[in-house]
Amino acid sequence: MANRITHLFQIKYPIIQAGMVWNSGWRLASAASNAGILGLLGAGSMYPDVLQEHIRKCKKATQNPFGVNVPMLYPNIEEIMNIIIEEDVKIVFTSAGNPKTWTTWLQERGVLVIHVVSSLKFALKAQEAGVDGIVAEGFEAGGHNGRDETTTLTLIPLVKEKISIPLIAAGGIATGKAMLACMVLGADGVQIGSRFVASEESSAHIDFKKAVVEAKEGDTQLTLKELAPVRLIKNKFYDDVQELYKTNPSKDELKELLGRARAKRGMFEGDLEEGELEIGQISGLIHDIKPVEQIVKDLITEFETAKSNLHSL
Amino acid sequence: MANRITHLFQIKYPIIQAGMVWNSGWRLASAASNAGILGLLGAGSMYPDVLQEHIRKCKKATQNPFGVNVPMLYPNIEEIMNIIIEEDVKIVFTSAGNPKTWTTWLQERGVLVIHVVSSLKFALKAQEAGVDGIVAEGFEAGGHNGRDETTTLTLIPLVKEKISIPLIAAGGIATGKAMLACMVLGADGVQIGSRFVASEESSAHIDFKKAVVEAKEGDTQLTLKELAPVRLIKNKFYDDVQELYKTNPSKDELKELLGRARAKRGMFEGDLEEGELEIGQISGLIHDIKPVEQIVKDLITEFETAKSNLHSL
Repeated sequence: MANRITHLFQIKYPIIQAGMVWNSGWRLASAASNAGILGLLGAGSMYPDVLQEHIRKCKKATQNPFGVNVPMLYPNIEEIMNIIIEEDVKIVFTSAGNPKTWTTWLQERGVLVIHVVSSLKFALKAQEAGVDGIVAEGFEAGGHNGRDETTTLTLIPLVKEKISIPLIAAGGIATGKAMLACMVLGADGVQIGSRFVASEESSAHIDFKKAVVEAKEGDTQLTLKELAPVRLIKNKFYDDVQELYKTNPSKDELKELLGRARAKRGMFEGDLEEGELEIGQISGLIHDIKPVEQIVKDLITEFETAKSNLHSL
Repeated sequence: MANRITHLFQIKYPIIQAGMVWNSGWRLASAASNAGILGLLGAGSMYPDVLQEHIRKCKKATQNPFGVNVPMLYPNIEEIMNIIIEEDVKIVFTSAGNPKTWTTWLQERGVLVIHVVSSLKFALKAQEAGVDGIVAEGFEAGGHNGRDETTTLTLIPLVKEKISIPLIAAGGIATGKAMLACMVLGADGVQIGSRFVASEESSAHIDFKKAVVEAKEGDTQLTLKELAPVRLIKNKFYDDVQELYKTNPSKDELKELLGRARAKRGMFEGDLEEGELEIGQISGLIHDIKPVEQIVKDLITEFETAKSNLHSL
């Protein structure tokens, strides 16, 4: 399965374990890297010193390459970037911000920079900023998402048509079949989030993992579009947001209801009522909590089987 | 490419040209059927006598099987169904209504019944109603759409997991690559709409066809969710709807703004400002108006090429 994604990251399979807030600590990232894919730490939910600790533990737990996902709107962004360089991390996935701000700075320090986008427009900007690759993430993805609501099936060919650098598909991918489908559409590899939330090694609260496994079609929705669109499981918090919408609220009123630390409360602390439970639509297809190694094995087996079955089409 | 969809409809390729309001008259349907796929007349925009005329003209224009798409909320539904039987149409795609209402009645009269759904829940209901096949249509599709906002990439495997009858994927498919991707996910065939709107034979107004060709990513949006969710090109009418939303309108106020015949005005009469311009997200990938025969040839060539290229993955 060698291709330009496996060469770029020096990994066995062209699969990236998404760096997700409150889910992707050193246990998940190192297990992913040990399984032959690229593990990512999710810096979005880590104070700088916590990130440093996770990087160090991750290095001890795997000999294989891993990276860090950095939402660039993070308040301590400079400190975060300095720690990444100090700790000699060689791969950074940036999101939620302008790719021009950090790409060259990181590359000059020997770091590969991949930028996450939700639309063709932002993919073109990222390519112009000189990134080494793009993650194009569709509307069905969990967590924060784009305003154009472009789905993965639409987004990948649109980006592929205009972009020449390595392209990683994300959003709605939890099986080897979906991985193959995205590569048929033109992706060089895939980034997988939700499936790894429901892994033994993710740092999500067990009650959140169970909620993901129990989620059915229609249980997630994209909401809070006036602030930053986010896909989450519909719960009491979601219902409260919908109630507030009936009053035609200002952004400040929405922000006040959202408050602080809702994501931590939901995903890390397991408050399924008041917390923000960020997960993708494809959670409807995830029925068990498995070790990362098993998830990766299953992905590859499904991928190879689906490829073989194509001969009969 | 023989499979259970080609056997079911007695067609060469497992592709269905979607029956769309104001776009799918006898010229489009017969051209599609003549090209080796299944052509569908869109009854949703036809008075019963107009439908009868289109069926008769379609029969004269092709020797191959064709069908009729019938939104079951249509006011003259009984008259429509009687005409379908009188005119000896053998394939009906039902949508927008309960599949129990007409399925048995049609099947007893020798008609194959395929039901269009937007969610797994409705797919299960359709299978229970005894339909001969299902079209599962994702969030990215043009025109009327489901409330769960499930994308094609998510919907197809979810439905495939629970449904044993023939499964047709729809929403976001305009190329042979997307067709192959959907078949990798488990679909037996695909239904294609937007690509055929921008055909020479569609009955859409030329200005609407040009608008489809010019549409870029982010130019369509799903709106009017309180009435019936519909995906359309953002224009003055769409902006007016968004303005009205700011006043927290009642359903009646939304209905009043929508008024009557907006779809006809936009798609058939070419009023790009005040009309409803229903089209899928994948319009961003459609760059030309082509004859149906060429569209089908290109789809098949792309499909075969994509399949061959998989060997290198």
